[in-house]
Amino acid sequence: MALVPSPVRIIGTGLIGGSLGMALGRSGVEVQVEDVSPGTAALAVELGVGFLPDEDSPDPALVLVAAPPDVSAALVDRALRAWPEALVADVASVKRTVLDGLRTRARPQDLPRYIGAHPMAGREVSGVIAARADLFQGRPFVVVPHEGTLPRAVTALKGLAAEIGAVPVAMDAADHDTAVAQVSHVPQVMSSLLGATLLAPSETALGLAGQGLRDTTRIADSDPRLWVEILGANAEAVAEVLDAVRERLDGVLDALETLQGDPDPGTGSRRALADLVAAGNRGVRRIPGKHGGATDAFATLVVLVPDRPGELARLLTEVGQIGVNLEDLRLEHELGRAVGLAHISIDASREDLLTRELTERGWKVADA
Amino acid sequence: MALVPSPVRIIGTGLIGGSLGMALGRSGVEVQVEDVSPGTAALAVELGVGFLPDEDSPDPALVLVAAPPDVSAALVDRALRAWPEALVADVASVKRTVLDGLRTRARPQDLPRYIGAHPMAGREVSGVIAARADLFQGRPFVVVPHEGTLPRAVTALKGLAAEIGAVPVAMDAADHDTAVAQVSHVPQVMSSLLGATLLAPSETALGLAGQGLRDTTRIADSDPRLWVEILGANAEAVAEVLDAVRERLDGVLDALETLQGDPDPGTGSRRALADLVAAGNRGVRRIPGKHGGATDAFATLVVLVPDRPGELARLLTEVGQIGVNLEDLRLEHELGRAVGLAHISIDASREDLLTRELTERGWKVADA
Repeated sequence: MALVPSPVRIIGTGLIGGSLGMALGRSGVEVQVEDVSPGTAALAVELGVGFLPDEDSPDPALVLVAAPPDVSAALVDRALRAWPEALVADVASVKRTVLDGLRTRARPQDLPRYIGAHPMAGREVSGVIAARADLFQGRPFVVVPHEGTLPRAVTALKGLAAEIGAVPVAMDAADHDTAVAQVSHVPQVMSSLLGATLLAPSETALGLAGQGLRDTTRIADSDPRLWVEILGANAEAVAEVLDAVRERLDGVLDALETLQGDPDPGTGSRRALADLVAAGNRGVRRIPGKHGGATDAFATLVVLVPDRPGELARLLTEVGQIGVNLEDLRLEHELGRAVGLAHISIDASREDLLTRELTERGWKVADA
Repeated sequence: MALVPSPVRIIGTGLIGGSLGMALGRSGVEVQVEDVSPGTAALAVELGVGFLPDEDSPDPALVLVAAPPDVSAALVDRALRAWPEALVADVASVKRTVLDGLRTRARPQDLPRYIGAHPMAGREVSGVIAARADLFQGRPFVVVPHEGTLPRAVTALKGLAAEIGAVPVAMDAADHDTAVAQVSHVPQVMSSLLGATLLAPSETALGLAGQGLRDTTRIADSDPRLWVEILGANAEAVAEVLDAVRERLDGVLDALETLQGDPDPGTGSRRALADLVAAGNRGVRRIPGKHGGATDAFATLVVLVPDRPGELARLLTEVGQIGVNLEDLRLEHELGRAVGLAHISIDASREDLLTRELTERGWKVADA
């Protein structure tokens, strides 16, 4: 039994729609493409996203609307009416406004065939020209049923996620929108705020920029038109997080003002700054490992390993004896140095134990 | 003639001091090491940073104080008094407070032998265990003379920068501190603020995190103790940038509030959000190319290249005919696709011209 109902009609062949078509086509699914711009649709066909349907083409069994949030509800409604047997999903990056829009717009009998989805993938580049069949590989694919969604719509979307190599995660629309505000929309705003500060520095100052600035501002180079729609459609959840940011920022500004007036104002102001950085430490360590989906935070220890045969094996044996699981191991060895560095990733809750035990056994251990 | 006076005494063998010693040692400079912690100094020797001086060791010709900003002035003063012939530099990441501290503390006749420096390099990891001889390779090395600094101190520090593969840049202390507030300290605060928001999300929400969140929060995992000193010592310059951030954040929050109340409030609120993202776009594009030091911002075009012999060569020939210099070229080719994508990096000021000319010649071009 096929995991994905066929044919699939993709409406909107941008980066996400185009990549979905390529990924599904690779799995042998018949993909029909449609775009408001005939030129874009033609380019999508040229790139292998799917083919242009004509009058003789069969009706789609599943429609994927891959359009900006503000037009998604209208396009989903049109599809529900046009193909009364088809399941219809949208893949916009906010889900409540689309569902609310459909509730006021769609015929009640059509709503059970609707289900939301959000493949969590993207690139700084946009448009079908940047589409790739492997865009969703290993990435979360959020399936967002409403209370009336048909069970077979949930099954179809989870099957689609699996078919394109993604990891299906089910959430309701409100939880989804809160989550993406926290892990995607607020990071975008913060990166844009930081990027905007770079209009002021001299060219000489910018010449001092390092990898830290590049990393923190990479996503600031994204499409204003798309982000206005996303932020507008998820305004409440985004504002809630940003309110907390403003409060913390005010505390930082107070501390900096105090420290300007008096170089030694007791511990209060320094503590406020230390608390900020420490809270950032704890927060960032909650992000799961690079494969996503894991719920443990990892810690990395750096252990000095003498460059003699058997030393690394001895280290790993002792880590095992201590009873700690290795999540990842990276070796760093610089030419001409008599030691290597083993970067050992472990469950963060075992960090203190392993540090203590290895130190007791004579290893030199540093926090990474 | 040697570029670096020898021997060099390094006071403070952490990440930066340790890496300086390794890099200088590799160039044949005699490196003496000293640290407030004898264990750290011994580890530094073991790692190849230098050797421990004894009574018979010659006096240093150049002293590098590699300590946190709050103790640097005292250590520089001590070195100026201990070795009346030596040049003395500190490599702390703020320069005004060190200079101010010396002006109140040091003997006036010693001051000409002092010069500030700031090798712009670092890693998330800290300590001598993370030190590397190539840490400064290709990175800016800011040389910070004051008005009384001896010319031979400037020459010595620029020579040292060149010797370790860094790019010397001269700035006065005030300009330096403003610059690092803009390109390093404020990014740290913004990343920490963002990291701190991650204490709130559910584990399911964090499971949706993508590369964007990882990049924007990578530097949030840094040492609170060190950053309290840096931010405290550069409070005025950091606060000035963060004041502007707060003002812009207030505008964003106003816009989000308006959009919650009314899904279609005219163009004002949407424009505020679009302006934010667009300002971020413009700011991030001012960061020079990955090698640092360059003052041009680059733009990247993505061009569709049919997978036929000679097509890429034809593209590059035509780019040359149009009169645009290629700064970087990356090819993306996915198995089973009949086209490849050429990512062409060029001077940002030539982007419109090249897009227009290539399009006219029949190439499919997208913004990256």
